[in-house]
Amino acid sequence: MERLTLFDTTLRDGQQTQGVQFSTPEKMQIAALLDSLGVDYIEGGWPGANPTDSAFFEARPQTRATLTAFGMTKRAGRSAENDDVLAGVLNAGTPAVCLVGKTHDFHVERALGITLEENVENIRASVAHAVAEGREALFDAEHFFDGWKANRSYALDCLRSARDAGARWIVLCDTNGGTLPVEIGEIVRAVIAEGIPGDRLGIHTHDDTGNAVGGTLAAVDAGARQIQGTLNGLGERCGNANLTTLIPTLLLKEPYASSYEIGVTPEGLRGLTKASRTLDDILNRVPLRSAPYVGASAFAHKAGLHASAIAKDPSTYEHISPDVVGNVRIVPMSNQAGQSNLIARLQGMGVPVEKGDPALAAILETVKAREEQGYSYDTAQASFELIAREALGQLPRFFEVKRYRVTIERRKNKYNQTVSLSEAVVVTKIGDRKMLSVSESMDETGSDRGPVNALSKALAKDLGPYQAAIDDMRLVDFKVRITQGGTEAVTRVVIDSEDGTGRRWSTVGVSPNLVDASFEALLDAINWKLLRDATPV
Amino acid sequence: MERLTLFDTTLRDGQQTQGVQFSTPEKMQIAALLDSLGVDYIEGGWPGANPTDSAFFEARPQTRATLTAFGMTKRAGRSAENDDVLAGVLNAGTPAVCLVGKTHDFHVERALGITLEENVENIRASVAHAVAEGREALFDAEHFFDGWKANRSYALDCLRSARDAGARWIVLCDTNGGTLPVEIGEIVRAVIAEGIPGDRLGIHTHDDTGNAVGGTLAAVDAGARQIQGTLNGLGERCGNANLTTLIPTLLLKEPYASSYEIGVTPEGLRGLTKASRTLDDILNRVPLRSAPYVGASAFAHKAGLHASAIAKDPSTYEHISPDVVGNVRIVPMSNQAGQSNLIARLQGMGVPVEKGDPALAAILETVKAREEQGYSYDTAQASFELIAREALGQLPRFFEVKRYRVTIERRKNKYNQTVSLSEAVVVTKIGDRKMLSVSESMDETGSDRGPVNALSKALAKDLGPYQAAIDDMRLVDFKVRITQGGTEAVTRVVIDSEDGTGRRWSTVGVSPNLVDASFEALLDAINWKLLRDATPV
Repeated sequence: MERLTLFDTTLRDGQQTQGVQFSTPEKMQIAALLDSLGVDYIEGGWPGANPTDSAFFEARPQTRATLTAFGMTKRAGRSAENDDVLAGVLNAGTPAVCLVGKTHDFHVERALGITLEENVENIRASVAHAVAEGREALFDAEHFFDGWKANRSYALDCLRSARDAGARWIVLCDTNGGTLPVEIGEIVRAVIAEGIPGDRLGIHTHDDTGNAVGGTLAAVDAGARQIQGTLNGLGERCGNANLTTLIPTLLLKEPYASSYEIGVTPEGLRGLTKASRTLDDILNRVPLRSAPYVGASAFAHKAGLHASAIAKDPSTYEHISPDVVGNVRIVPMSNQAGQSNLIARLQGMGVPVEKGDPALAAILETVKAREEQGYSYDTAQASFELIAREALGQLPRFFEVKRYRVTIERRKNKYNQTVSLSEAVVVTKIGDRKMLSVSESMDETGSDRGPVNALSKALAKDLGPYQAAIDDMRLVDFKVRITQGGTEAVTRVVIDSEDGTGRRWSTVGVSPNLVDASFEALLDAINWKLLRDATPV
Repeated sequence: MERLTLFDTTLRDGQQTQGVQFSTPEKMQIAALLDSLGVDYIEGGWPGANPTDSAFFEARPQTRATLTAFGMTKRAGRSAENDDVLAGVLNAGTPAVCLVGKTHDFHVERALGITLEENVENIRASVAHAVAEGREALFDAEHFFDGWKANRSYALDCLRSARDAGARWIVLCDTNGGTLPVEIGEIVRAVIAEGIPGDRLGIHTHDDTGNAVGGTLAAVDAGARQIQGTLNGLGERCGNANLTTLIPTLLLKEPYASSYEIGVTPEGLRGLTKASRTLDDILNRVPLRSAPYVGASAFAHKAGLHASAIAKDPSTYEHISPDVVGNVRIVPMSNQAGQSNLIARLQGMGVPVEKGDPALAAILETVKAREEQGYSYDTAQASFELIAREALGQLPRFFEVKRYRVTIERRKNKYNQTVSLSEAVVVTKIGDRKMLSVSESMDETGSDRGPVNALSKALAKDLGPYQAAIDDMRLVDFKVRITQGGTEAVTRVVIDSEDGTGRRWSTVGVSPNLVDASFEALLDAINWKLLRDATPV
């Protein structure tokens, strides 16, 4: 078995996805996610190029995978030692650095405006400098396939220059994404025949023709041994090669499964769907239902003939078993398949339930009806638990909200500054006691924190006997999505809460009114916490 | 040049997409869309299988493409003439019928429970019957690739049976989507060597390994001459081969461009992006930004180095020119962008600006400061344009919002049902006129549509002289994101709007108060629209 190396660039090329803007804490979270999946390299960004990337490397993330800083080869007219941009990359102190350089004569002359010889020297000197500094050096051969077609001998000179200077990996990049798999395979074969060994060759593709995965496989077939890609196929334009698709293909499909080994274990593979959803969750992206292997529809059997055959034998309409990648089969109208999944899920949450309990069917029906309204329980496990406990008679009624009113005002103050303020009145009933409370959205610094803040403060004031149990709760994130477009717009709010013990839970609310949806999610969050830390009055 | 035939199954296999449910009028609209694109066959559904499909065929849609009815081969134990399901298909009166049948021995025995011989006879008799009725017959060889691997000679017997009975096309289906392109190519070659001619062979793939497009191209390389697929890659599970991706690849990429001709003209190709968006619009799906060729991000250049090279020559980072497929280039603003990007971007938006204008530095500073507050202009191009026009003195003041107040109430009504209602008061100034207006969030069905709805209605009431210009505006999506966690939470709202001309634009608002952030994005959306369609009073 030959080893294939997985090089993840979610934090670098994935950052070029339109609409994606990582914060440094998000980069830390994603690095940990990638590390637990089992990739070999994590490219963290370009230190010096922007504050977020610099802060990420300054935090010195500890990963099992080889942490890699990205940068570009030195500029012409100065030495590698005196190039401040290159110095910024090396100063990040990572064990590996990946330097991108031109290999297409057109780009050298047109985009850089330097001579072909200067560019070859820039590659050589930059790689040699990184190696001299004790780093593992990777060379990203930008536009290599286009360069090969335009001026084969020059493109090869660039690769040889990197190879001879000591680059561990030379990565052939189809930067513009326009090269089809057959051609990628032919060119990789030719490059190996020209003396760049396959076990030093990587492949980096983009999905501009819908072939990023196919192009990567063609390069592996031809002998390349490093794969660059991103989780969920994030990346510039149409995205990079999708590792979420490639990893199961390499582990489960022939000829890859019996010819190669990769760093992802069967257990890691079972975490793939969760890893994919977690990334979307961090970035507040709606998971792509139709994504291969990990999409919510990837094992959904809608056609009637398919569904009835699936009931006889799932292999009739499934190319792999969904549990292998941590995904689930969806067969509409099949409560049987649903019930055993449900029991497993509830037991996993510590909710006692027995097979055959009639409440199980009721739970499935409630979930189904609510999902039709726009609820989603993929991430909002705590709200799902409340539904289940309610149906099982395991949900005490801690308190009741009789009504609330929120007022939001924006106006000019006497200094002609625009100011806004929200005020919330909440009326609750705890046991026999009716309680009114009011709060406003101003924080201690005089800033308006908005209507949900006012509501949650008013609600928290009202919970007299339960106050101690919710004192350490805080809202750590919330996400809002329109689930149906146009005038029928329905808002889904997912709130993440945390408490002093480090517990973190997610709840969901749905309403055309986003304050109301937030309030519903907030109520669920409080009830879930009370279930654990309070006794009903 | 050899002819490749395009067989569209959006209305049949595309109907198996989770969450997609066509109405008959939608099917008519989509058939017209496909016809104007230039596909050769339109498979309209399965007459008799459901009321929508039956009604579609009963309406006798007139298409230039060959309208095709789908069905299955006759069942065992009766003649083709006496099979009511098959009769339903033929009675639709289409010039072509496509009949699916088993070719995998496991499925014949396990799913159908009949003998291998009976199945071969079912294929023969069904195809022969359709031909005798004067129809062009196509045979969909279900699970062919898995069948070939399990029992090659039986799978071939099934194909030969269809061929000898007079099927014009024999379509090799990778029904479960698990076969990789290299294997598809090898098997198609072997099938042709066994005497099924390539010009009678079709290919039908699914995207379960992310290779539906690649598998289709591999089959064409091997000699198959009909391509089955769907617009936007709709279809069961992960979807079918995406014709929206395949069509431009076949027309623009080698070896296809100079070896084959297809029914889509260069003019049809320029309508591809619009066709893709129109389908999403009909189905109320959010268009996939990263879709090859037609996605809103397919020609978006976010990386600073890419953007500056694009300004010199777009071919540096584009594999094709976006206008060829009716798409547009986007150079988004980001923290890496400099003045040359900015000029290119503004010119692309039709904002006149000259190099060296001091306003350019002011724009970059404003954008940077706002990004630090949580704004993001990657997608919110319209808000960015407003900032730029303001700095350049090109933003007329259409109206001013003096103040607003929104009240949100939730309480029990006299029937003890929980009801909620929002009310908004907006005070604006247009020229010298101060205007007060009030709206509530109730829609015509009596449902609460929430505070942003109430606000936008109140605002729209207030815009007297501008009313005509904003009447065709509608909110199509909005996304809310907390940009900093915990009590310092700041909310970013991105609103997508659309108007009657099909224009779509995105705006952003940021505030700790989510109603306020929404209001800001809403104001930007209106101002951007007024810029185009109104004259300041």
